[in-house]
Amino acid sequence: MTLALNREELTDYLAEVFPQIRDDFAIDDLTENTITMRLLTDDRHLRPGGTVSGPSMFALADVAVYAMVLARVGKKALAVTTNCSLDFMRKPEAGRDVIAHCRLLKLGRVLAVGDVLMVSDGGDKPVARATLTYSIPPR
Amino acid sequence: MTLALNREELTDYLAEVFPQIRDDFAIDDLTENTITMRLLTDDRHLRPGGTVSGPSMFALADVAVYAMVLARVGKKALAVTTNCSLDFMRKPEAGRDVIAHCRLLKLGRVLAVGDVLMVSDGGDKPVARATLTYSIPPR
Amino acid sequence: MTLALNREELTDYLAEVFPQIRDDFAIDDLTENTITMRLLTDDRHLRPGGTVSGPSMFALADVAVYAMVLARVGKKALAVTTNCSLDFMRKPEAGRDVIAHCRLLKLGRVLAVGDVLMVSDGGDKPVARATLTYSIPPR
Amino acid sequence: MTLALNREELTDYLAEVFPQIRDDFAIDDLTENTITMRLLTDDRHLRPGGTVSGPSMFALADVAVYAMVLARVGKKALAVTTNCSLDFMRKPEAGRDVIAHCRLLKLGRVLAVGDVLMVSDGGDKPVARATLTYSIPPR
Repeated sequence: MTLALNREELTDYLAEVFPQIRDDFAIDDLTENTITMRLLTDDRHLRPGGTVSGPSMFALADVAVYAMVLARVGKKALAVTTNCSLDFMRKPEAGRDVIAHCRLLKLGRVLAVGDVLMVSDGGDKPVARATLTYSIPPR
Repeated sequence: MTLALNREELTDYLAEVFPQIRDDFAIDDLTENTITMRLLTDDRHLRPGGTVSGPSMFALADVAVYAMVLARVGKKALAVTTNCSLDFMRKPEAGRDVIAHCRLLKLGRVLAVGDVLMVSDGGDKPVARATLTYSIPPR
Repeated sequence: MTLALNREELTDYLAEVFPQIRDDFAIDDLTENTITMRLLTDDRHLRPGGTVSGPSMFALADVAVYAMVLARVGKKALAVTTNCSLDFMRKPEAGRDVIAHCRLLKLGRVLAVGDVLMVSDGGDKPVARATLTYSIPPR
Repeated sequence: MTLALNREELTDYLAEVFPQIRDDFAIDDLTENTITMRLLTDDRHLRPGGTVSGPSMFALADVAVYAMVLARVGKKALAVTTNCSLDFMRKPEAGRDVIAHCRLLKLGRVLAVGDVLMVSDGGDKPVARATLTYSIPPR
């Protein structure tokens, strides 16, 4: 059980297959079962009142699990999200990055499941959580 | 049980509180318990391969339920999403709007629940479904 | 697109593979894309206060989607639930059966998705909703 | 931030308000933000093949979050589940208790959110996960 892609390879591959989001996210940390993904919060991620929008938090959780799965199975850009549950619990702090702590709970032949706890950078209370299922294309 | 805001009033109010999304969505239809919301699909909503991205579909479902709730309770911009479940079932057709058919399932004093079935414009098979819970601020 | 099992065959097969629940559920109606499943409410389904318990409503939604999938793919007892989202919206009425109206939203090679709206028998307001994903074993 | 009920008080109160489940569950551990709840697996919790049934795992997750909330807010039997998401990831091992590790993620005035990771006793791979939202009755 080792990583198919290390942090640098994964960063490069995400930038290659999703060039439009390369300025939105950064990988802070990667292990065999966890990834820490950062939303580089910018005006375009905010909703009125200055907090990070729901779609931006969905995108963060989605890319975190996607990246975790690719880190393990290699360059399979066609993995697709089949299911997501999200709980929004507190308002993210304005002007802060959002940090997603993702754990890989299952990596099957066909399905992978990861959950994600999101906090404002420097904060300790969860602002949101998510669980996502990815369908992995056959070899 | 009547609407607090009609279609025109609701469209204007959404444009006022969320000016950044006024070119993304249009309300096709509104009744006391249902709303039909259209994602005016544009390049910025797409992911590689030309299909509508997950965050764009989340945003569509989220704004549909938000608009439905406001149509009933009036101008309470501060209603917030507390929970969302999403199932992605088919690839949306490239170059088509996505149409969200939303039903209000519950409108309580504190919580509102709506579900959403999404199809590609002109198609009949669901591309995704979602259920969202909104917390309604006290009067 | 026709049914692999009709209502009688499906009832018999469920009784064969899940004998312990044969007195709990009845199929009221079955079409190619919908099933109506009834929880034959009894003391063992209740929680204090006389309303139907959460686990009983989960079981009803779960068996409804399971039966719908089997009606289409035939006798594949080993289909397993991989994901479920549930919203509990109103207290079921005491002493009434709960009726689950299930729609099949997707029947893929590997995954099937169905959603379920639950009402108290004779009532019209939803008491709960659910969406379930089943993984279908390979032929 | 202290516990309103300790482990013994909580065990007694659950037995008082839900006498029908007193033989199904035991509290292994309780802290200010976590609870470990055990399903005392018995024949009535199994499905064909000898694995723990979906409704029994739902019930375990549900009672774990309920107990965690009561441990903090005190004897408010009327707290009700409003939402649940569940992912079933592996077959529980036959003949083993299922252990639910629950974390309280939010305890608001109106809503509480907890997530739950379930493993077979003695195993380390998650068999299922769940997140539940409870609505807390006003004082």
